Amino acid sequence: MSSQKPKVVISERTIGRLSLYRRLLNDLQAQGERNIYSHELAAMIGGTAAQIRRDLMAVGYSGSPTHGYDIRELVLSIGNFLDAPHMQGVALVGVGNLGRAIMAFFSGRRPRLAIAAAFDNDPYKINRVIHGCRCYGIEDLSRIVQEQGLEVGILCVPSQAAQDVAERLVRAGIRGILNFAPIPLRVPANVYVEDIDMTMSLEKVAYFGRQHANKEGLK
Amino acid sequence: MSSQKPKVVISERTIGRLSLYRRLLNDLQAQGERNIYSHELAAMIGGTAAQIRRDLMAVGYSGSPTHGYDIRELVLSIGNFLDAPHMQGVALVGVGNLGRAIMAFFSGRRPRLAIAAAFDNDPYKINRVIHGCRCYGIEDLSRIVQEQGLEVGILCVPSQAAQDVAERLVRAGIRGILNFAPIPLRVPANVYVEDIDMTMSLEKVAYFGRQHANKEGLK
Repeated sequence: MSSQKPKVVISERTIGRLSLYRRLLNDLQAQGERNIYSHELAAMIGGTAAQIRRDLMAVGYSGSPTHGYDIRELVLSIGNFLDAPHMQGVALVGVGNLGRAIMAFFSGRRPRLAIAAAFDNDPYKINRVIHGCRCYGIEDLSRIVQEQGLEVGILCVPSQAAQDVAERLVRAGIRGILNFAPIPLRVPANVYVEDIDMTMSLEKVAYFGRQHANKEGLK
Repeated sequence: MSSQKPKVVISERTIGRLSLYRRLLNDLQAQGERNIYSHELAAMIGGTAAQIRRDLMAVGYSGSPTHGYDIRELVLSIGNFLDAPHMQGVALVGVGNLGRAIMAFFSGRRPRLAIAAAFDNDPYKINRVIHGCRCYGIEDLSRIVQEQGLEVGILCVPSQAAQDVAERLVRAGIRGILNFAPIPLRVPANVYVEDIDMTMSLEKVAYFGRQHANKEGLK
């Protein structure tokens, strides 16, 4: 029942699953559920009970064999493990169509992990407040990141600008970047990058979905 | 120089890279570029020239050793290979914060692959036009998908509703789903699913970025 952080190295997949468990458990809690067994959680995500137990042992939480996990305590334990003890501010760069969509999506979702400042080089956007977040010029990036102690970057600029902006983020001290620009970033080994390419994903779905439909003679 | 479709099976990664090449080539064309060598394209994406040539041979296009690839022709060849000969309509389900952000992002981007109808169970959203797209009740999903010949689904509903909506999409004849709900879908083998979990990605970036910063003593 302790929530001490163990010293083991946790894989990317485990961190991803912990993030997922927490959201599913939050949903269950909102529906009035209080307890859950590892096999029930496993059924929700299509995994095994053994994997769930292993993942949750990594956060230092173990349930009771008779009542399963206490959902409220488990959510807190995962939070203690996943979240920073302080608020982690996020810098979003590129306030175009995609950037604004992402600001709208994350707006107000995670109090401890919120977009605190946005950056663009369009003078019409600078100093505007968009989805509750002030927009600055790109030349102020380093200063604002340091003044506000921002720790995470979200990159929504066109591909031609992505590498330059990534280097500015790294120079400013940012070590984690969520990259929506459709180009691989070259960053030092001490910077963690996660790529999301929504257009590529939609084009893959359209292509392979069409292949399946053709095979069935649906189209 | 032909753009005949070869009969080989193309991997998911190749389709993803073709989608990426096309966008990079479109950007170059917009900047006035006319030709590109495989090694130049390789440098842009951090790959090898041999891989670029192999990928582009799959679409039935080969460049000239002296001038490289003609960018305009290459964009057309990739389009002939990736895109449906007809327009592929997309059905988006779940017009919440995330769904609206995704509608805003894809609005007007791909004439051959556009969100044609949105679905929600909130009576205040039904019959509204959001980002140029009409919103219908979820009970009309099957009828609209069939009437409009929609081929691709985008799932933006809460996790509890995702499996049910996925099954409705499959019953309506959809064989490709882009799933933003943070839960794995159970679908028949003839349905292609691609998952995007933006919250999970941001939480991973925050976690691993923090680990790196801690190691460096930045925080």
